[in-house]
Amino acid sequence: MKTNVPEASAERPSYTPTPAPVTLTSLGRVKASGVAAGIKPSGRPDVALLVFDAPTPCAAVFTKNAFAAAPVVVCREHLEASGGMVRALVINAGNANACTGEQGMRDARAMCDHVAGKLGCDPKSVLVASTGVIGVPLPIDRVRAGIDAAFDTLSADDAGARRFLDAIQTTDAFPKEAGVDAAGSRAAGVAKGAGMIEPDMATMIAIAGTSATLSVAELRAAAKSIADRSFNAIHVDSHASTNDSFYLFATGRDEGHPAAAVEALGGIAEKLAWLIARDGEGATKVTTIDVLGAPDDEAAGDIARRVAHSALVRTALYGNDPNWGRFVSALGNSPYAGDVSRLSCTLQGIAVFEHGEPAKFDRAAASAAMARTDDLRIVLDLHAGSGRARVLTSDLGYRYVEVNAEYTT
Amino acid sequence: MKTNVPEASAERPSYTPTPAPVTLTSLGRVKASGVAAGIKPSGRPDVALLVFDAPTPCAAVFTKNAFAAAPVVVCREHLEASGGMVRALVINAGNANACTGEQGMRDARAMCDHVAGKLGCDPKSVLVASTGVIGVPLPIDRVRAGIDAAFDTLSADDAGARRFLDAIQTTDAFPKEAGVDAAGSRAAGVAKGAGMIEPDMATMIAIAGTSATLSVAELRAAAKSIADRSFNAIHVDSHASTNDSFYLFATGRDEGHPAAAVEALGGIAEKLAWLIARDGEGATKVTTIDVLGAPDDEAAGDIARRVAHSALVRTALYGNDPNWGRFVSALGNSPYAGDVSRLSCTLQGIAVFEHGEPAKFDRAAASAAMARTDDLRIVLDLHAGSGRARVLTSDLGYRYVEVNAEYTT
Repeated sequence: MKTNVPEASAERPSYTPTPAPVTLTSLGRVKASGVAAGIKPSGRPDVALLVFDAPTPCAAVFTKNAFAAAPVVVCREHLEASGGMVRALVINAGNANACTGEQGMRDARAMCDHVAGKLGCDPKSVLVASTGVIGVPLPIDRVRAGIDAAFDTLSADDAGARRFLDAIQTTDAFPKEAGVDAAGSRAAGVAKGAGMIEPDMATMIAIAGTSATLSVAELRAAAKSIADRSFNAIHVDSHASTNDSFYLFATGRDEGHPAAAVEALGGIAEKLAWLIARDGEGATKVTTIDVLGAPDDEAAGDIARRVAHSALVRTALYGNDPNWGRFVSALGNSPYAGDVSRLSCTLQGIAVFEHGEPAKFDRAAASAAMARTDDLRIVLDLHAGSGRARVLTSDLGYRYVEVNAEYTT
Repeated sequence: MKTNVPEASAERPSYTPTPAPVTLTSLGRVKASGVAAGIKPSGRPDVALLVFDAPTPCAAVFTKNAFAAAPVVVCREHLEASGGMVRALVINAGNANACTGEQGMRDARAMCDHVAGKLGCDPKSVLVASTGVIGVPLPIDRVRAGIDAAFDTLSADDAGARRFLDAIQTTDAFPKEAGVDAAGSRAAGVAKGAGMIEPDMATMIAIAGTSATLSVAELRAAAKSIADRSFNAIHVDSHASTNDSFYLFATGRDEGHPAAAVEALGGIAEKLAWLIARDGEGATKVTTIDVLGAPDDEAAGDIARRVAHSALVRTALYGNDPNWGRFVSALGNSPYAGDVSRLSCTLQGIAVFEHGEPAKFDRAAASAAMARTDDLRIVLDLHAGSGRARVLTSDLGYRYVEVNAEYTT
């Protein structure tokens, strides 16, 4: 349908991230590459390879989707069998290898086998990820040729790390990387998402590492809590992918302080999560929803997710509309909503609803404040306890529909 | 943002319903009217009145939102106090009287008081509903003047019933009515939704009645089950309103068969629910999602809602994209997903996924079939039990964003 789309919120320049000063390869003892293997019809890079100089401690968090894609199933097996000591991670974009039945399992294993053959290692010390169109068999010969080419161009410099990042992108509007020099060690990470590939499942894949010395057990303990307060706290479209994967590794080049290293990895993951929400298809800003004063943290989490997921809330955010009735009524749909007469809400620091009553505020000024920022903040305070939760959400605009409806397969 | 919206699904003519052969007033013993009282800035009719000739059995189902609007709170009190014997129902459009604190409660009671004063009856035998902008005090003097005018134009003919229907509309693209001559009695109903009012909360209000003789207890028993398989089975945007209300009454003019009367009321409600889904903002069709073979009905319901709520599924439906990977992966997010290798999916009768493997089908033909119909059907069969559920959903297109983002308050 040809739609007469009126002018929405003011035109925004596209977001341009600053390059990270520390990359995956600058953690030491790791090489990276990315090549174009012809999986994506666009001809863009689509096979990414990370190779450690020696078996390296690794942990991961995967999608909770019951129909996890073949590479996720294989990674779970391999991390179990290898005890988390990993030699390489191979990723293809352009095809999710999800809902592909037994052939998909054979193809995911074939990718690990091929990398292991090149390295002369056990295939179980190789991890694999895929992102792209769902339900289509992998062109495995092209993937194998891509892996060969990726080995030929492996490098330990920043350029190698960025070729790796480039090759895991799908419809990402910008590359997502983060890196810091922490006390005595370095941490870095890259991510893709929540883009689509011509135009199927949104998938997020993130890889973060530290140069500090951490054991597999320490990484496993850190991975879950880091994921919960970063990637599991962002919302783009309520539809967890079959392929979502987050890998964490420690090269052990530096001694560093283990707790400081974990803290730095947490910061890397939060930055990558923010970048993913910022790139939520068609999003114009990141909105942080803080719920305070709930009976407990679980109640706060339920409320924050309901507000973040509401399409009515998210279209209001896109339209820079300080439409607090939508935030408050979305909260009212939670079983933990409690007494509306105690509820207060602020939007970018402006009180819009106070103890169950509409507050007087300058709507035009509030709307202008919404339009100006990349970082919008809604605080809902139930005044009913000490429970709190934070969720990041993307706004819902025309471009979301365009990306997800128009490219009919 | 000025967006270059590409051509989406083929242009569709707007939906034109056929007028119902039986209206609320043709149930007997009831008069109706609708007037313009100046609550809507547009000047369109916005006060609707239904007056029974005598106390009449009535039951209702309301929103589960914890922050139910003042008229919902008042209706619950009045139905309790009156034992469900009702003299009148007054509705205003243009203002939801929700999140309006104590003043809102006073205004909702004032509407009932004013109607009761005109009828010389107990205010507790009057019901009240509101739909429109949230968080703004009612212009109660205009509402009172509108009620006076509505009394002056009450009539027992079809024209009165249609003026009533007209005055409860907000941004509905077409009026929603249904009526049948059942065995020995008649049943009729009207509804508004899921439109928005310049442009706040989506609200649905439905009123259905029978000319048969049913007690309050019989109506109460029927109301819940009828709502569950009609209005509670439609999905437009995951955001239950503070004002959703469904009223059911029996004029007792005819004897009829009670079970047949309840059955007819169920059919009326299902038709109204279909019309609401058809008018889901920007929707181009109604999609019925049937889940079969689940462990039990509860599991089937969870799965059906997850598929219906997914923005990725709904944009694919808008784009006439037979993108079964989205349906299957949405199902995979349910804790009841089970074994993917048993799962099959059909789309408009075409097998697209069979026992965990992609099926070969003509995508262009499937897409054309999607574009042609007002009634799309997805069947997901888990082959894991006898549980089943049905949910109706609207598709998600540009117009949804336009309606809900653009009219910045």
